[in-house]
Amino acid sequence: MNKKEFSNLTQSPVILDGATGSNLQKRGMPSGVCPEKWIVENREVLIGLQREYVEAGTDILYAPTFSANRIKLAEYGLENEIERLNKELVAISKEAAAGRALVAGDITMTGEQLAPMGPLEFEELIDIYKEQIGYLAEAGVDLLVIETMMSLQESRAALIAAKETCSLPVMVTMTFNEEGRTLYGTDPETAVVVLQNLGADAVGVNCSTGPDKMIAIVERMKKHAIVPIIAKPNAGIPSLDENGNTVYDMEPSEFVKNMKKIVEAGACIIGGCCGTTPEYIRALKDASEDMEPAPLNKSQGRVIASERKLLSFGLDSRFMIVGERINPTGKKKLQEELRNGEFNMVLDFAAEQEKCGAKILDINVGMNGIDEKQTMLQTIREVSSAVSLPLCIDSSHIEVVEAALRQYPGRALINSISLETEKFEKLIPIAKKYGAMFVLLPLSDKGLPKSLEEKMEIIHTILEAAIAHGMTKEDIVVDGLVATVGADKNAALDTLATIRYCRDTLGLATIIGLSNISFGLPDRSFVNSTFLTMAIKEGLTMAIANPSQEMLVKTAFAADLLMNKEEADISYINKITEMNSKEQETAASMETVQGKTVPVAENYETKI
Amino acid sequence: MNKKEFSNLTQSPVILDGATGSNLQKRGMPSGVCPEKWIVENREVLIGLQREYVEAGTDILYAPTFSANRIKLAEYGLENEIERLNKELVAISKEAAAGRALVAGDITMTGEQLAPMGPLEFEELIDIYKEQIGYLAEAGVDLLVIETMMSLQESRAALIAAKETCSLPVMVTMTFNEEGRTLYGTDPETAVVVLQNLGADAVGVNCSTGPDKMIAIVERMKKHAIVPIIAKPNAGIPSLDENGNTVYDMEPSEFVKNMKKIVEAGACIIGGCCGTTPEYIRALKDASEDMEPAPLNKSQGRVIASERKLLSFGLDSRFMIVGERINPTGKKKLQEELRNGEFNMVLDFAAEQEKCGAKILDINVGMNGIDEKQTMLQTIREVSSAVSLPLCIDSSHIEVVEAALRQYPGRALINSISLETEKFEKLIPIAKKYGAMFVLLPLSDKGLPKSLEEKMEIIHTILEAAIAHGMTKEDIVVDGLVATVGADKNAALDTLATIRYCRDTLGLATIIGLSNISFGLPDRSFVNSTFLTMAIKEGLTMAIANPSQEMLVKTAFAADLLMNKEEADISYINKITEMNSKEQETAASMETVQGKTVPVAENYETKI
Ligand SMILES: [Zn+2]
Ligand SMILES: [Zn+2]
Ligand SMILES: [Zn+2]
Repeated sequence: MNKKEFSNLTQSPVILDGATGSNLQKRGMPSGVCPEKWIVENREVLIGLQREYVEAGTDILYAPTFSANRIKLAEYGLENEIERLNKELVAISKEAAAGRALVAGDITMTGEQLAPMGPLEFEELIDIYKEQIGYLAEAGVDLLVIETMMSLQESRAALIAAKETCSLPVMVTMTFNEEGRTLYGTDPETAVVVLQNLGADAVGVNCSTGPDKMIAIVERMKKHAIVPIIAKPNAGIPSLDENGNTVYDMEPSEFVKNMKKIVEAGACIIGGCCGTTPEYIRALKDASEDMEPAPLNKSQGRVIASERKLLSFGLDSRFMIVGERINPTGKKKLQEELRNGEFNMVLDFAAEQEKCGAKILDINVGMNGIDEKQTMLQTIREVSSAVSLPLCIDSSHIEVVEAALRQYPGRALINSISLETEKFEKLIPIAKKYGAMFVLLPLSDKGLPKSLEEKMEIIHTILEAAIAHGMTKEDIVVDGLVATVGADKNAALDTLATIRYCRDTLGLATIIGLSNISFGLPDRSFVNSTFLTMAIKEGLTMAIANPSQEMLVKTAFAADLLMNKEEADISYINKITEMNSKEQETAASMETVQGKTVPVAENYETKI
Repeated sequence: MNKKEFSNLTQSPVILDGATGSNLQKRGMPSGVCPEKWIVENREVLIGLQREYVEAGTDILYAPTFSANRIKLAEYGLENEIERLNKELVAISKEAAAGRALVAGDITMTGEQLAPMGPLEFEELIDIYKEQIGYLAEAGVDLLVIETMMSLQESRAALIAAKETCSLPVMVTMTFNEEGRTLYGTDPETAVVVLQNLGADAVGVNCSTGPDKMIAIVERMKKHAIVPIIAKPNAGIPSLDENGNTVYDMEPSEFVKNMKKIVEAGACIIGGCCGTTPEYIRALKDASEDMEPAPLNKSQGRVIASERKLLSFGLDSRFMIVGERINPTGKKKLQEELRNGEFNMVLDFAAEQEKCGAKILDINVGMNGIDEKQTMLQTIREVSSAVSLPLCIDSSHIEVVEAALRQYPGRALINSISLETEKFEKLIPIAKKYGAMFVLLPLSDKGLPKSLEEKMEIIHTILEAAIAHGMTKEDIVVDGLVATVGADKNAALDTLATIRYCRDTLGLATIIGLSNISFGLPDRSFVNSTFLTMAIKEGLTMAIANPSQEMLVKTAFAADLLMNKEEADISYINKITEMNSKEQETAASMETVQGKTVPVAENYETKI
């Protein structure tokens, strides 16, 4: 099956199967054995169960290859049987399906943690998955399902492996607790956004809870999902019966009643997980005649994400600062630390910028004397572990950007893609492959555009190329390209016109780097803040800046307030109160001169 | 002759006469006599001279009533002959003209100075002139000429007297030194603007210099003149001959050569003053066949003026602050001073605001327990003597505004005219009569407009009424009417839309009062400065504010810089350098704490 056929399938509810393991146990599979081996040796038991699922109405059977990866099989000394086991297990399911249901190759976690918590490197894990997926594809599965995932990063590894191995459709489902977090803290929105941009053809939730508790999770996913949503809950809450067996408390009728609500909440690929049986699936199939899945969202909105936090914004959203401080340019001490592989300043900058209200952190480690790729990967890892803000990958080297995107466990913003030939040709496909948003920098091989018209032409060219590669306007943030007003008197007006044009005519978000504008002028902070105000008035979305600059931040909050943006009034008051109470604390510890308190002057000029 | 007929007259060069006094002396008038009395007693001498002028080509004869006002005549004990003298003198000129030339009733200064320098109150002087003008009108002069004026304020008194006595056309000419200043410091542009707005039908320069030195003065007048320009220079430079008589050094041919340049510079009513004779006028008339006066300017631009300084601005001019501090509201100490008739604080505020770069000073003395009209008049007098900035007359009482405009020796800005019935009906004619510019405040009897549409409607209604009264769009500055963003979330956006609409659609200048916007919010200076930036971006012309607010001023200069306004880059650098060097001076005298200089914090919140 190709991705297009899969997509057509989901126009009406798609019925998955129910539990496998618990039903096999009931039918004689002892505990402690390797399930894959046992099934191959007792193929009629699985064929019986799966035939019942097909009879009940299952459209897609999950082949029993769940743990048939090299790491899991090695626990039973079966790592060298991996090809045979995967192929035989798929063959068994195909026999059960007998052409009446599709068969999905099933993949899950290896049980080994990724570095730095565990021993497994990200690329190793991708290779583990590639091996299994290769055999599944050779065995002729119709699609792949990556399921019961507790880690977004391991889900990404499996998804990257799938995309780099075959062109089969891929479904990904994760498990969430009742608070809507995975074991590693990822929420449903973030999971959907990261996975669908990385190429998942359907995303959802399995196991986790009964269907009643799963409604809210599906609702949250639906807000940003542009792919079908999968819901495969357990048969209610588990408990142990008198025989020590796990039993679930929800009857098929109650299960189905809740599944209707799940479909109303946005799911269209539905089935059962632990505790469900062919009886549940038959009831679900019967009820599905009356279910009408909501149409797919046409747009996910403008979203980027870290592993644990989604940032969603529109053209009228409150202005955002992209923290610029993790950048060694002009910072001797930071350069020294990075050269020594130390990250204290990086982590301080990350924490300080998050505290000051930055919404995104720019990560730039470009300098001489280091392996930029390795330093970038380690910086991303360190920063991601310390703060939950999404990151902006800022490098002038294509291979550094690609490595960073491949490893970053979220949806990043790339800074930036210009019309410089090599970047343009290579980075757009890379952005698309890893599902990143990108900053469109209106530069070409000829350098800075000579006129506003040339700037607009470059913007159009890059925009069209991105759309031709399957990206959308919402994946792009245009850099207004700020020149120096001291050198070019029209610098500010040109950038403001660019912002207005992108915002109103093209419907594109915009970003600027502020400090260029005031180069060479006295009291640069006034020029920067004033320029920022004008840019916000013209529709600017975000700026790369130092969020510790008091005047800039207060000005930005005042600008949003005056623009009547959502909750900007409360935000202004809260922000000012917070900033000023910090000042008061400082003042309280100040020197007294001749009986009179002398506050330290605010340095509006810091660190621009 | 009515004003319209006069206006038609000036489509080709109008020839005036030449000198009277010096020629009468040559023809027998002894020095020391009262010229008016001597002429009446020797009428044939004048008739002879003026006939020669008519023969030479004079279109307008000046009746010899130059000094026939009550004060001058009293020097010869002839104050009770004023009616008879004026009427007989006019009759003599009419006889000389014999219908071949028009006769202008001639008026000049009384020789007594106005208060506070002299004993003469402004209204007394108006009455003096009214008396003479009344007799001139009764005697049947075709028009009036107020000439050889060294004081703009005395010229205003004569012009007001003329307008309140008859409807004859009035020409006004002043005398300037070679540097282009009158005795009291008025420059040619200011003279033209103040007098033409007060209703003069032609304005110009007489006596002063030879025609060569007068070219530059005419050029300066032409820039803002919307009425014909008069040039009546001397026959070059005076000196005494061996007999002790005053002689002039420029021959008729040279005189006429320069007069051609004067016409090219913009004059179209031309004649001669001291030292000229019928020979000069004949040469001038002959040459005038080839002279083509420039067409009248359709617009004077946006101009206001004090007695000594013109302020001209366009819709794209650099942003201006109207200094708001001369206003007793909330200022206990100023109230006390005004109650005691003291003006120390007023003068301090005036000087300080001028030093800080205010371009206009708002004068508001509204408070309880004083005679607002008298206090206003005295404040205007005091402030005008101390600083040269034009004033904005700010009172809620119509009679105070009228009294102020009548006395103010410049072209004032009225703050403000709304659609409140009484103000609307009375203040527009008053603004027109005294030639003031006004702030259009979009309020009505119903109070604040309930919507942007209502606001626009009020603006249109007042604008149309002003135009119906003969004013123009350039005489109006619309108040954007700033509400409080804390109470009305759209307050800023509404005002910004008003500014943009006035600027782009109506072509009107705009003004705002800043501080309302931030009422009740913390750190108001940030909200005010940010709002100001947006307003400047939308095309704001000026704001009423305290020019001592560092942040506001620096922001405004930065905004102009970013907007690429004329010379805004140099202005920004100069202003910041100037402001910061003042700070440095302060810093230099600061305390040292533990060996480290601790600067005093800038208080951005002062005095809002
Ligand atoms: Zn389960
Ligand atoms: Zn391509
Ligand atoms: Zn003269």
